[in-house]
Amino acid sequence: MHTVDLDHASMAEAKRRLDGLSKPLGSLGWLEDAVVQVCGILGTPDPDITKKAVAVFCADNGVVEEGVSQVGSEVTAAVARNFTRGITAINVFTRRFHQDLFILDVGIKEKTDHPGILDRNIMRGTFNMTKMPAMTMEQAGKAVDTGIQTVGMLKEMGYGMVGTGEMGIGNTTTSSAITKVLLSCCTEDVTGRGAGLSDEGLARKIRAIDLAIETNRPDPSNPLDVLSKVGGLDIACICGCFLGGMIHRIPVVMDGFISAAGALLAYRMNPCVKKFMIVSHGSAEPGSKYIFREMGLSPVLDMGLRLGEGTGASMIMSLLDLAFDAYHNMGTFEQASIRKYEHLNGEQP
Amino acid sequence: MHTVDLDHASMAEAKRRLDGLSKPLGSLGWLEDAVVQVCGILGTPDPDITKKAVAVFCADNGVVEEGVSQVGSEVTAAVARNFTRGITAINVFTRRFHQDLFILDVGIKEKTDHPGILDRNIMRGTFNMTKMPAMTMEQAGKAVDTGIQTVGMLKEMGYGMVGTGEMGIGNTTTSSAITKVLLSCCTEDVTGRGAGLSDEGLARKIRAIDLAIETNRPDPSNPLDVLSKVGGLDIACICGCFLGGMIHRIPVVMDGFISAAGALLAYRMNPCVKKFMIVSHGSAEPGSKYIFREMGLSPVLDMGLRLGEGTGASMIMSLLDLAFDAYHNMGTFEQASIRKYEHLNGEQP
Repeated sequence: MHTVDLDHASMAEAKRRLDGLSKPLGSLGWLEDAVVQVCGILGTPDPDITKKAVAVFCADNGVVEEGVSQVGSEVTAAVARNFTRGITAINVFTRRFHQDLFILDVGIKEKTDHPGILDRNIMRGTFNMTKMPAMTMEQAGKAVDTGIQTVGMLKEMGYGMVGTGEMGIGNTTTSSAITKVLLSCCTEDVTGRGAGLSDEGLARKIRAIDLAIETNRPDPSNPLDVLSKVGGLDIACICGCFLGGMIHRIPVVMDGFISAAGALLAYRMNPCVKKFMIVSHGSAEPGSKYIFREMGLSPVLDMGLRLGEGTGASMIMSLLDLAFDAYHNMGTFEQASIRKYEHLNGEQP
Repeated sequence: MHTVDLDHASMAEAKRRLDGLSKPLGSLGWLEDAVVQVCGILGTPDPDITKKAVAVFCADNGVVEEGVSQVGSEVTAAVARNFTRGITAINVFTRRFHQDLFILDVGIKEKTDHPGILDRNIMRGTFNMTKMPAMTMEQAGKAVDTGIQTVGMLKEMGYGMVGTGEMGIGNTTTSSAITKVLLSCCTEDVTGRGAGLSDEGLARKIRAIDLAIETNRPDPSNPLDVLSKVGGLDIACICGCFLGGMIHRIPVVMDGFISAAGALLAYRMNPCVKKFMIVSHGSAEPGSKYIFREMGLSPVLDMGLRLGEGTGASMIMSLLDLAFDAYHNMGTFEQASIRKYEHLNGEQP
């Protein structure tokens, strides 16, 4: 396994500067930790994170045939088009926070043919996983590679950070299936109502997940096998984004449950990816907290969001702007004319 | 007890509009709840929250003589002056979020005499509560009234929302004492390291709290008695702010542990204040979660912040800007050309 590490010299310098700011040591909590992590990822105590991108991977899921969602697959293409019209939640969020939005068709059923949508289509929606593998190993590998390439492209374009978004009717079903297989959870514990399922719909969703696993028997020790059999193209691309963050040394920001499933897959492929991931919010989807626990992460927002599209990642990136603003623009103890706080119990900085 | 309620017609209209936006119903979680609450408080589905204020109440605590903090009382005045120089964390936060900052001397030991600091001094620091009540009932009442008046003044100045900040060496000690008395907790459970106490310092702090309670025997059923005997002038003003939010019908935003102690006092004086409070973050101080639990509130940020100054309130207010941006600027289902999501299990909006 390829071991990759953060730049500890840059992190130490960032920590030294943070400790010199006129506030109790560490009192900005996660905001300070995130600054240190980003400096470690980008390999400098003065990283440029001015340009930030949210990449939204859009794809359809064959399992929607089983009645696991309130709306049909046609909504994926409709919402993908709406992203280009500026009227969705992620449009409002990224506009407000001066982030750039990239919409990618990685598996929409319908052809979208729109200049605002990047065509990276791998297949026109996955197969119905209750009957056969959602995709081939080759297609899964190609989708993961698409995620890696996307992060590489964005880094080359001068972006200092990438948020992971998705849109795909049925993708909480695939995320729950992946979570169940990789963490050996009860299906009921990791399956939620998605965009708003009734009790009957939720029962159908749980049955579909169990049936898909029974039909395909994914191997929990082989993440790509799990991904191809009970996953989705959006999740595969997001998994690739996290791998790409490590490869290209750029922070990749988690979003909600679907993004967390992609993060977990990447983590199982190479645990080092965790160092390059920025943690996001705790989704209202119940599977989210199991993934956070497994990866030893704590969500920093807890708002009961369950929208996806990269909205959580967008908020987190805006908090990183705030964190770096404090890092660069707060006064030091010298400027503040007060004595520096001491480290606890003689601990050294 | 005076019962005050939110404007349910405005809340219903806000909810109706949110449900018409092209996203799964309720999928923006707390962001939607907060929009509805603010509309209910301000009595209109189109509230103007452009102007937002953070009020920072600065005061000293006599108990600092007992060695309960890493730095001395002189730091309160020094930081209060630094607020006017624009170099503190809350300066960076409010500048970034276009919020206005109001610094009030409500009990600093030293005379500050600065045009940027509003003189509302009630006494030059409280008495040492391990030896006598921190202040008289009259002084406590005057401080609460100062908080109410401050919110009234800000409402009159056109502010649509007020965040509660504080600065005062020793004020986690008073907050822990209040929490212990009002919630009958173990002192150890609700007492933390504040700005960074050593193990010995923490032990001294716990002893000082226990001694203050033994000396003064505050009556848990009388919030003003508790406040005057083991509280502080900053907490009293913040308690007044929450009462003022209810009286003047304007949202008042919680900050960290000290603000939560003020919120709990106000809640014990009149539980209706809760409807006018906007919940903030979970502080790293251990007492915070007991107060949230008692009041039935869940923090929406969980970043291990323990800086105070109103930094958490400032972040929360910026999230409200985001929430209202989505409320006003997202497309409706009609504009999005997709079918509206249905309410769960036939539930009516």
